[in-house]
Amino acid sequence: MTSFGHTVGTPLEHKFGAWLQQTNDLTRRFVAAAFIPDLINMAGGLPDPSLFPVEALAEAAAKAITDHPDLTLGYIPTGGLPCLREAIAARYQQQGIPVDASNVLITASGTQALDLLGKVFLEPGSVLVSDILTYTGALDAWRPRHPQFHTLPMAELQSRGDPSPIAPCMADAAMVYMIPNFSNPTGHLVDLPSRQALVTASLDTNTILVEDDPYGTLFYDTAPLPSMLALAAKGQQAPYRGPVIHMGSLSKQLVPGLRVGWVVADPSVIEAMTIAKQATDLCSNGLAQLMTLTAIERGLIDEMQPRALALYRTRRDSLLDAMSRHISPWFHWECPVGGMFIWATAHDPHLDIKRLADTAMDLGVLVGPGYVFDPVDACNPAIRLNFTLNDEAKLDLAMRRLAAALEGLAQAA
Amino acid sequence: MTSFGHTVGTPLEHKFGAWLQQTNDLTRRFVAAAFIPDLINMAGGLPDPSLFPVEALAEAAAKAITDHPDLTLGYIPTGGLPCLREAIAARYQQQGIPVDASNVLITASGTQALDLLGKVFLEPGSVLVSDILTYTGALDAWRPRHPQFHTLPMAELQSRGDPSPIAPCMADAAMVYMIPNFSNPTGHLVDLPSRQALVTASLDTNTILVEDDPYGTLFYDTAPLPSMLALAAKGQQAPYRGPVIHMGSLSKQLVPGLRVGWVVADPSVIEAMTIAKQATDLCSNGLAQLMTLTAIERGLIDEMQPRALALYRTRRDSLLDAMSRHISPWFHWECPVGGMFIWATAHDPHLDIKRLADTAMDLGVLVGPGYVFDPVDACNPAIRLNFTLNDEAKLDLAMRRLAAALEGLAQAA
Repeated sequence: MTSFGHTVGTPLEHKFGAWLQQTNDLTRRFVAAAFIPDLINMAGGLPDPSLFPVEALAEAAAKAITDHPDLTLGYIPTGGLPCLREAIAARYQQQGIPVDASNVLITASGTQALDLLGKVFLEPGSVLVSDILTYTGALDAWRPRHPQFHTLPMAELQSRGDPSPIAPCMADAAMVYMIPNFSNPTGHLVDLPSRQALVTASLDTNTILVEDDPYGTLFYDTAPLPSMLALAAKGQQAPYRGPVIHMGSLSKQLVPGLRVGWVVADPSVIEAMTIAKQATDLCSNGLAQLMTLTAIERGLIDEMQPRALALYRTRRDSLLDAMSRHISPWFHWECPVGGMFIWATAHDPHLDIKRLADTAMDLGVLVGPGYVFDPVDACNPAIRLNFTLNDEAKLDLAMRRLAAALEGLAQAA
Repeated sequence: MTSFGHTVGTPLEHKFGAWLQQTNDLTRRFVAAAFIPDLINMAGGLPDPSLFPVEALAEAAAKAITDHPDLTLGYIPTGGLPCLREAIAARYQQQGIPVDASNVLITASGTQALDLLGKVFLEPGSVLVSDILTYTGALDAWRPRHPQFHTLPMAELQSRGDPSPIAPCMADAAMVYMIPNFSNPTGHLVDLPSRQALVTASLDTNTILVEDDPYGTLFYDTAPLPSMLALAAKGQQAPYRGPVIHMGSLSKQLVPGLRVGWVVADPSVIEAMTIAKQATDLCSNGLAQLMTLTAIERGLIDEMQPRALALYRTRRDSLLDAMSRHISPWFHWECPVGGMFIWATAHDPHLDIKRLADTAMDLGVLVGPGYVFDPVDACNPAIRLNFTLNDEAKLDLAMRRLAAALEGLAQAA
């Protein structure tokens, strides 16, 4: 414990919010890992930088500042630049979803959207329902609000073909959180009947249902399923109205570093979240928003998508092969139909994942320990492996290093 | 009240956090006001865009992306780019304050720093002590944490020459918040004995003392006073350790639109705030951080400061003259020695400031209503007037419009 060079009073650390102790340390580690040479980072949802349109974005940045110093160097409206809100709305309209600019809030990343949702909908003791394993960043974003975490085992309900537990579980919830496209961390695709059951329960009870969709453009084997937003908005005219809230992000579609995300929701929800955003950062960076607009208008996102799909599909298959070669004595897994991760569960229910992750890091590979995605401590020992950042040779080397870590643990036991 | 086009369940609006009702609507109005033609905006702390080094920043942006695509388009460390943390630390070292990179967190604006402080130090019922009138954005940033607001009348204590109430008032506080340089909204300069009393009480009781200092470079008539950080760190070697937390911002020193701020604090505080930031936005925009580094290295900030000082000093004097000409029958005020605002108190303790602000807006001038800066409802009717954004002719016109609004109210009464 640090002291402050004087002895009066209580140690400062006692004053830090207790929720800080419960956050995951994975995220900081994977971000910092980018700066460690030779470490193979399979822990984060990191896109391959070779896909980034660097020159086009450099040009867009300079032009945005020169042409619009007011919008790039001055304060901008809290809810985002109106021109970008309209452009985002238009992309949903092109998919037949009745959305206009009043349905759109621009956020400084998807994580900020999660923080704002917590501020608007969660108070201490509020019930937050998620899938039984879910995104650790969302759990952490909501910990300062002190919710109760409840869970729905979506993959199990789907395999039983029985969505009937969904509605009663939602009845007490302040908010339900789902990632239908590839259920980070597990890769599970929520099927159409389950999506419809979630949306129907949300509409019937007016329960906030959040659809977090950063990976929705990364379907490798099949056509995309309709979003829960599309199901909820069916038959409406713009502006969309209803309790389903959809989150999108530039991070997996173009580049993560601009920190641009968005929320599509009922205008009253957008208004409440805008007030919360004013109290959180006043407004976000206008340059990043104008660069995003340029990227949409010049087709940079649409051009990148088929290249990303082809690259990531190949890498998913490479990682599956490498896993079969090197770690099948210890783990089993399913092939994910999209997204950025493979979820691998240990055969041994007593495998110490924390020790494994530490040992693997010493041997040069960073993996995502399963427990950080597990709000109610329900999960068997598991790891999450990212396949989008590294090439085939590195994925193979990483699995060899992981196998060495596993052998080391077995010998020590 | 909006309904969702279906009648089952309770209206959604009941689910919005009650704290949202208590936030000020001034900030959104002044940001939106930039888009209303002919409205003279005196409500915000807006710098004059004619000072912005537009071409240099456009060039810096393009070069940052081209030379460092990893740092501008990829995820960066949550706490900020190490090179910028070091450059900010070096600026404090140049003033003789023993600070290194472990003392610095880069935030996406000063407002984000306030949000993070709330998450780390405030839980429902925590006592938050501020000056009797204080920055509305800070109050709003902390409302989601449900603190109790207590106040210290700093100007009154200073005029009595009696700092003795400071220490007992701090004893129960989770956090004390001060803006020693020009006490937004009042313009009051906290003198050296009062600063020392605050710092001594903080050190003696290990109470977190936040020094928010966006205006510290805007002393018009005298040399700057030592910061509370400097007083707390006296005699130390880097890294600085202690309960005084200092906040800085690029918004008033260069441009607000990049949304770059920073916190200087004990390394343990920086670590806790970094965990909170991870749960808030994962990391901020790296491009804005590299542009800030370029602005420091090329001297853009240091070049701008004397120009800003000369321009804003003249405008302060122009506004004082215009106020004397047009609104002295209704208001009295003191000349602020720095910052961006003049605080004007009504002679009539029953003047309806909300009606005045609405009427003035209809007549084309936006003023800051005093009550939004008043956490415990202690303030006489007052308004805050910004003098940095508009030129002499506009300041005069604005005061003529305000006088017309005042006459209109008097006739209606």
